[in-house]
Amino acid sequence: MTVTNSKAETKPAKATGSMSEKMALKKLSKIIYFFADGKADGNATLKSTLGGKGANLAEMTALGLPVPPGFTISTEVCQAFFDAGEKLPAEVVKAIDEAVDRLEKVTAKKMGSTTMPLLVSVRSGARASMPGMMDTILNLGLNDQTVEVLAKVSQNPRFAWDAYRRFLQMYSNVVMGMNGSFLDVILEDLKHDKGYKNDTDMSADDLKALVAKYKKNIIEHTGRAFPLEPREQLYGAISSVFKSWNTPRAVTYRELHGYPDSWGTAVNVQSMVFGNMGEDSATGVAFTRNPSTGEKKFFGEYMVNAQGEDVVAGIRTPEPIETLQKIMPRAYQELVDTYQKLEKFFRDMQDIEFTIERGKLYMLQTRTGKRTTLAALRVAREMIEEKLITEEEAILRIDPKGLDQLLHPTLDPDAAKTKLTKGLPASPGAAVGQIVFTSEDAVDWAEKGKKVILARIETSPEDIEGMVKAQGVMTSRGGMTSHAAVVARGMGKCCVAGAGEIDIDYRAKTLRVNDYVLKEGDYITLDGSTGEVFLGEVKTVPPRLEENFTFIMALADKYRTMGVRANADTPADAVQARKFGAEGVGLCRTEHMFFNADRIDVVRQMILADEREERIRALDKLLPMQREDFIGIFSAMDGLPVTIRLLDPPLHEFLPQSDSEIRELAHRIKWDENSVRSKIRNLHEFNPMLGHRGCRLAITYPEIYQMQARAIAEAVIELMKKGKKPIAEIMIPLVGMKEELKRLRRLVEVEVGRVQEELGLKFDVKIGTMIELPRAALIADQIAEYAEFFSFGTNDLTQTTMGLSRDDSARFLSTYVSDGILPFDPFQTIDREGVGELVKKAVEFGRQTKPDIKLGVCGEHGGDPQSISFFYEIGLHYVSCSPFRVPIARLSAARAALEQKKAERLQ
Amino acid sequence: MTVTNSKAETKPAKATGSMSEKMALKKLSKIIYFFADGKADGNATLKSTLGGKGANLAEMTALGLPVPPGFTISTEVCQAFFDAGEKLPAEVVKAIDEAVDRLEKVTAKKMGSTTMPLLVSVRSGARASMPGMMDTILNLGLNDQTVEVLAKVSQNPRFAWDAYRRFLQMYSNVVMGMNGSFLDVILEDLKHDKGYKNDTDMSADDLKALVAKYKKNIIEHTGRAFPLEPREQLYGAISSVFKSWNTPRAVTYRELHGYPDSWGTAVNVQSMVFGNMGEDSATGVAFTRNPSTGEKKFFGEYMVNAQGEDVVAGIRTPEPIETLQKIMPRAYQELVDTYQKLEKFFRDMQDIEFTIERGKLYMLQTRTGKRTTLAALRVAREMIEEKLITEEEAILRIDPKGLDQLLHPTLDPDAAKTKLTKGLPASPGAAVGQIVFTSEDAVDWAEKGKKVILARIETSPEDIEGMVKAQGVMTSRGGMTSHAAVVARGMGKCCVAGAGEIDIDYRAKTLRVNDYVLKEGDYITLDGSTGEVFLGEVKTVPPRLEENFTFIMALADKYRTMGVRANADTPADAVQARKFGAEGVGLCRTEHMFFNADRIDVVRQMILADEREERIRALDKLLPMQREDFIGIFSAMDGLPVTIRLLDPPLHEFLPQSDSEIRELAHRIKWDENSVRSKIRNLHEFNPMLGHRGCRLAITYPEIYQMQARAIAEAVIELMKKGKKPIAEIMIPLVGMKEELKRLRRLVEVEVGRVQEELGLKFDVKIGTMIELPRAALIADQIAEYAEFFSFGTNDLTQTTMGLSRDDSARFLSTYVSDGILPFDPFQTIDREGVGELVKKAVEFGRQTKPDIKLGVCGEHGGDPQSISFFYEIGLHYVSCSPFRVPIARLSAARAALEQKKAERLQ
Repeated sequence: MTVTNSKAETKPAKATGSMSEKMALKKLSKIIYFFADGKADGNATLKSTLGGKGANLAEMTALGLPVPPGFTISTEVCQAFFDAGEKLPAEVVKAIDEAVDRLEKVTAKKMGSTTMPLLVSVRSGARASMPGMMDTILNLGLNDQTVEVLAKVSQNPRFAWDAYRRFLQMYSNVVMGMNGSFLDVILEDLKHDKGYKNDTDMSADDLKALVAKYKKNIIEHTGRAFPLEPREQLYGAISSVFKSWNTPRAVTYRELHGYPDSWGTAVNVQSMVFGNMGEDSATGVAFTRNPSTGEKKFFGEYMVNAQGEDVVAGIRTPEPIETLQKIMPRAYQELVDTYQKLEKFFRDMQDIEFTIERGKLYMLQTRTGKRTTLAALRVAREMIEEKLITEEEAILRIDPKGLDQLLHPTLDPDAAKTKLTKGLPASPGAAVGQIVFTSEDAVDWAEKGKKVILARIETSPEDIEGMVKAQGVMTSRGGMTSHAAVVARGMGKCCVAGAGEIDIDYRAKTLRVNDYVLKEGDYITLDGSTGEVFLGEVKTVPPRLEENFTFIMALADKYRTMGVRANADTPADAVQARKFGAEGVGLCRTEHMFFNADRIDVVRQMILADEREERIRALDKLLPMQREDFIGIFSAMDGLPVTIRLLDPPLHEFLPQSDSEIRELAHRIKWDENSVRSKIRNLHEFNPMLGHRGCRLAITYPEIYQMQARAIAEAVIELMKKGKKPIAEIMIPLVGMKEELKRLRRLVEVEVGRVQEELGLKFDVKIGTMIELPRAALIADQIAEYAEFFSFGTNDLTQTTMGLSRDDSARFLSTYVSDGILPFDPFQTIDREGVGELVKKAVEFGRQTKPDIKLGVCGEHGGDPQSISFFYEIGLHYVSCSPFRVPIARLSAARAALEQKKAERLQ
Repeated sequence: MTVTNSKAETKPAKATGSMSEKMALKKLSKIIYFFADGKADGNATLKSTLGGKGANLAEMTALGLPVPPGFTISTEVCQAFFDAGEKLPAEVVKAIDEAVDRLEKVTAKKMGSTTMPLLVSVRSGARASMPGMMDTILNLGLNDQTVEVLAKVSQNPRFAWDAYRRFLQMYSNVVMGMNGSFLDVILEDLKHDKGYKNDTDMSADDLKALVAKYKKNIIEHTGRAFPLEPREQLYGAISSVFKSWNTPRAVTYRELHGYPDSWGTAVNVQSMVFGNMGEDSATGVAFTRNPSTGEKKFFGEYMVNAQGEDVVAGIRTPEPIETLQKIMPRAYQELVDTYQKLEKFFRDMQDIEFTIERGKLYMLQTRTGKRTTLAALRVAREMIEEKLITEEEAILRIDPKGLDQLLHPTLDPDAAKTKLTKGLPASPGAAVGQIVFTSEDAVDWAEKGKKVILARIETSPEDIEGMVKAQGVMTSRGGMTSHAAVVARGMGKCCVAGAGEIDIDYRAKTLRVNDYVLKEGDYITLDGSTGEVFLGEVKTVPPRLEENFTFIMALADKYRTMGVRANADTPADAVQARKFGAEGVGLCRTEHMFFNADRIDVVRQMILADEREERIRALDKLLPMQREDFIGIFSAMDGLPVTIRLLDPPLHEFLPQSDSEIRELAHRIKWDENSVRSKIRNLHEFNPMLGHRGCRLAITYPEIYQMQARAIAEAVIELMKKGKKPIAEIMIPLVGMKEELKRLRRLVEVEVGRVQEELGLKFDVKIGTMIELPRAALIADQIAEYAEFFSFGTNDLTQTTMGLSRDDSARFLSTYVSDGILPFDPFQTIDREGVGELVKKAVEFGRQTKPDIKLGVCGEHGGDPQSISFFYEIGLHYVSCSPFRVPIARLSAARAALEQKKAERLQ
């Protein structure tokens, strides 16, 4: 066909080689890095040549640890393999043969030997672990003869034949390219014929029969016999590791992470050891400290006369590691010495795998141990105290995201649960309560002392009071930054959003999910950290904020240079934020103050007003209320800056939509019902996100911002007169044109000036703007003429730059992320290439005009570690996030500063 | 107050002077440029020194034309005036005095003389005309003495006193800074006391009394007496002209147009002549050719014994210019000689003003004559034939926007009309018909032979059939690029959009506008070129496309280098577009094909399908229909490229919304009503513009694009087999990430390849994308890897870049434009700073990856002359616009090419 192909479409993966790359083949310096008996060709610094795994194996060997001997084939060979047309070059084969010879010598075993057969594992190992690549082939070297030896020495023929069967299955699939399902069918047939339920029901003889059938089947499907010759098996396995470097999934993964194709993978070949060679053999896993609590105590379990697989299969219960001391005291002591050496060497808690073969300890793996955040904090602190690591290192070791768990109640991990469905983990924590379907019901029930979960298709600002009263919020629609999600996070309230499987019927007051139908009053439990929804009441555990947390937070503050503020709309939010260490309010959304029951109708009268005078009358009523709001927030943040965003959302968001609500409103405010209805209809917008909102409202109705400016100024002066130190910053939202800001800045200045004159006190107020439209970023140099600060509204900037509504995109965005079209949800982590590029440009342009312009961010990204790192890189002065994310932001900011320092040191 | 002021806020206007500018004062070379009696210091090339007006007066004088003598004060003096603290420097005053002396000499009159008083006019004159600046003060030199002389020589005391009264009023306001309303009140009081209705009821004595009162009042309000000394009057007037250079309106205007403050304005002082000095005096205006038809024949009118003002006031009916020959043969002959000289000199049709004072002709003004497009075409063509101008010049003289009038029927300018309201001129032409309120009614009534106007609050794709059948469309909501506007323009159908005063009640089938209530069946008339709506049936005249049009279009094609295509969704559109000269289809919106009554239900079944199989069944039914659509369009555009955009809008746009429609649909397609309802509810989006649409649909439902790709390929091959030359280009909309295009390109290629194999014929197809999201523009280098062409969707790009919904912004955008926050509606003319910058970047990035990538634009801007000029500048290969704008685009493209050539020549 002649359908035009873009050049890039057919571009070969780099590793498949150009002429110049073939030339590189000549330069293959060292093919094999051997490790055995305390000596290794490589070490931990050679990750680019040996991959992560190979480098660590070499290092452990060099440390004198008992590592089963083996060798690593250098990553350079990967390139040579592709250059040679996906073949192992002769010199490589030769080198492998020599290495095997040497391995046979040090192990006193021989591949294919019917007395002492050498079995090996073959593993891939790139610089970074990469999904889509071949993982491990175990027991390579097994064939019809050696299997019998294995059966004998393990005294477990079933194990031996099962190992052989698995080896055949894996090898035929991975190395010989056979569809795995053919052999699966044979296995299933056998089980069916014999009436077996589980694989474990099969006897050694069954497995032996199966091996015969497998081999026959392999010939039928591949036209080739399974290679019985161990070295031939080895060449095939090694080639497969190299080939797996270019599987589509691995290529895509590299593209997404920006890893170059030229890295290549190494191959690790290591002699097998067996923990199932009798009662003097064992296998186990352990942590050098307790991974749940961080306690400095050897922690782990083992099984006598068993292989790693047996532990996983759960055939027997493993024993706690301490008991090993009694039964194999020498091996145990060696293990203890080893783990201590490892922790000292790697200077971090290790997760180790070991096998004891006939009383002799072998270390199979060591890696940094995964731990809970609680443990991470304790380990970090104690390792500083032990002088094992520096403060900087401690900070760099704690994943900021994990702090979330500490700040909210969580589900008891041991409780039994019935999962109903899974939505988005919109706001962490756990919540248990009775389902209600309206905000009013939530308020009513809560006032009667009931704990409720507010279940809505989606929430709107009208639902805020219900959300406040509910234990948690669940929506069937909307994304991570939907109204429900954003507001809940702000409140620190548990929320599961966009649980699309749930079908809510408001009229019937029921919800349907899979086969369940729940009605009002039924109990459910939400896990806002995972997005899961459970039936009934699941036990929860309260948050634990202890001194290790405080210690690490103080360290973070010591090392970070970027400020951390909070998004807070109420005095309560502000108090909470300050408690978590916020250094001010980066975003106070005045509109949230408009929704209180006692003022919403006044707001509505203001909106529905036909005449300016009428509007001003309503605004006059709002003025004292707004002033009180600001007094509350300024007081909570006394001495710290508070950035107040003037009214932003489209006015119709404040109006009721349903017929009955409209009727009631008209009645309450004594208006003609039809004219209310027609006004509401008139205010309807197709795309409110892009409509009459933000500063556009004030261009049309300047009196709104005038009132707000006055309320702020009056609040500031009132507090000043009481000896307090309010610091107000006024922010104009949704500016897209210089002229908008110029005019509204003037309007605010004039009004503030008027209040100062009236009340006889002066004060400074910074006036700035949100940068939340692509156009604003593109003309930031012009906008900076009229702004003392920019606050990047990266939520809206993401929506407009990507053309992606955060309320509507949940429907397809998860597919985008899971399919790798996007590396992550751009509403959670900033899209550097697009949105980030605009932020960067705006920073540059803004500074061109005003070098000392203050720069911050107040979108959801302000609480996301990866995004914070980006904001640090481009030189923002502060981030602002919801109160409950402030600790995360503090730690992330410290990490960003340290990462940069580290990078600079490396340069 | 200490509210922080940004530096820029208090930046003084440049003209108010820095030290370095004060130094410039020394260099004032020539202050005065005198012109009299065939000799002038200046000429037409000195526009920067003399302003436009002064330069032309000098030129006319030098041409030997009878221009009342006078002098121009150079624009340099404007700077000096501000540098001196808004005072006329002594050397300037001296120069003015000398110039006045000289003027008195050449006119044999003297300022303030009680026998032969010299009266002058004072006018501003910058390089370009600029609103907000002082225009003209006439009859300067009048005072209590000279007014009597004027009364005597004009034999018209009322005229003299009225002139004095007006002079006082203007002078006190403009020069002395007095609020004009004070004098207005005195005038109104007098009229009220005397029982007069009009100003013209006042007698000479009334006016004399008024003058006395005015003078008294001026002292009271300004504390200064009105200066009776003529030279003092003159200094004041000149100073005021300079001051008016810095009125806020003039400053804003300059800012918006990028005119530097340093230009300054010139001042023209010219002796007055009077056409009301008796029966041997006259005044008139004339055109050197007929401004309506372009006919080469002197055309104008005059009035004996009258002043310019009298002609405007319409006291008497002016006479046709030819009759002047009889009563003042000598003056007439001189006038004819003069106009011919002027036309030859300026090489364009002139609009002239003249006065005959006591038998002597004076030329007061000449300027390029405004003309209808019809006249412009004829004049341009005939002037080429007369060898007066070149082809290039001819093209540059025709305003492309005017062509619109020619392509549509227009209202008879002589018909009587009752205007109901005014909306936006959304799609030009005139339409008369009976009001209907639904698309169905439009279809029904039209089928019964009635002419209807479809009146809707707004239209949706469901209204398309009604729009097709209606004579014209009117909406009460939506902007110039609302659905109604865009679709109507595409059809070449008259449309008035966003007529906000109209209140439509669908239930009652009535519309209310101001005091009128119209019901279904009442006649109205729309003028889509002005946005006006008239009561009843107004007579229209058909479009006139004659040979001058064809001639100029052929010229345009000769000089343009940029291609012009059309946006066409149906074969009929394509035929129309080709007739207007389109060189292909730049945008074929496949979704418009989905709305036909015979397929919409199949489309809906496709959308409502729960399972992929079900969806594919529905798509299979759509396939032959789509194929037929494409066959039709390819046939109409045989041999020319057709860019087909795959499905773009959110799916819910295809679904019914009202309860009854949903019920009917469920019944028709035999589905459960509740599940239809719930599915529709599920598809609802808050911001559909930013939702699940464009290529996102195909990521989720690849089978939709597969079907479309197949339909295109099958259509191409069917036509190829018939010997035709279909050229298909497939366009993927709303791409924001490289990966989207990469995958969908592959999908389309595979499907097209499949069809080629099945049908045994191969062909080339280009695959490209719309660039319509800021992110796409920012990563255009990556996107270009998978695109053979970019088509800029500047409608959507404007919406996202500016965060401005075209459907919702009508409400405030007009205020933005009228208040000068935006220079124009960004949906009509591209916003160069924001949206344009992104387009430019994308062009640059796209070419980095693929130097020969094809670049076009298919947004509404493709038919806007200013925007076309921008697209030419940044190097796009073609523009695409609605069929009826194709001629405009052809001409604009030619002009853009010639403008650039001209600019390059000037460099």
